[in-house]
Amino acid sequence: MTGTYVSISRLRIAPDRVAALIEAFGNRSGDVEHHDGFIDLQVLQSDRDPGDVLMISRWRDRDCFTAYMKSEDHRRSHARIDPELRKAIKLQALEHLHVVAE
Amino acid sequence: MTGTYVSISRLRIAPDRVAALIEAFGNRSGDVEHHDGFIDLQVLQSDRDPGDVLMISRWRDRDCFTAYMKSEDHRRSHARIDPELRKAIKLQALEHLHVVAE
Repeated sequence: MTGTYVSISRLRIAPDRVAALIEAFGNRSGDVEHHDGFIDLQVLQSDRDPGDVLMISRWRDRDCFTAYMKSEDHRRSHARIDPELRKAIKLQALEHLHVVAE
Repeated sequence: MTGTYVSISRLRIAPDRVAALIEAFGNRSGDVEHHDGFIDLQVLQSDRDPGDVLMISRWRDRDCFTAYMKSEDHRRSHARIDPELRKAIKLQALEHLHVVAE
């Protein structure tokens, strides 16, 4: 929907750890889904560069996203990630966008 | 949905032409929406850098996207863009990805 807020995290990960990332994602707490304004969250993998992974979340507006990022649920969700896996993931870029047409 | 194919075109445009881009997008032929496997198409604008614009389209699989890109509808859709506007838009990067988790 026009006005939707979109956050894109670009991750760099060794391609042989992507399966572990997907498994950890599948076992996540899921609390994010109950936060006000949450629309969806997807993990995407580049076809050409399998170590290039995007996490795209969509929210009703930026305030909803910001409230989640400051929440205890977000802190807890990240704390659950296996430290070894966390070390294998580098955040390359964080983008904040709005849907302006569709 | 897992397996969904996602194409991201990153455009660079003078911020004062973004309104014209959105208008042209709103007046598009819309033929893409009738192509097999088309899911949706969104235009996103960066919050921090208003000249940084993404066009994200989602498809059932890569073959559907490729078939559309080779179609007469795609050719015609691009030919409809005002030449002056087209000159103001630079394609910076094209990414091909698949949804691996959600």
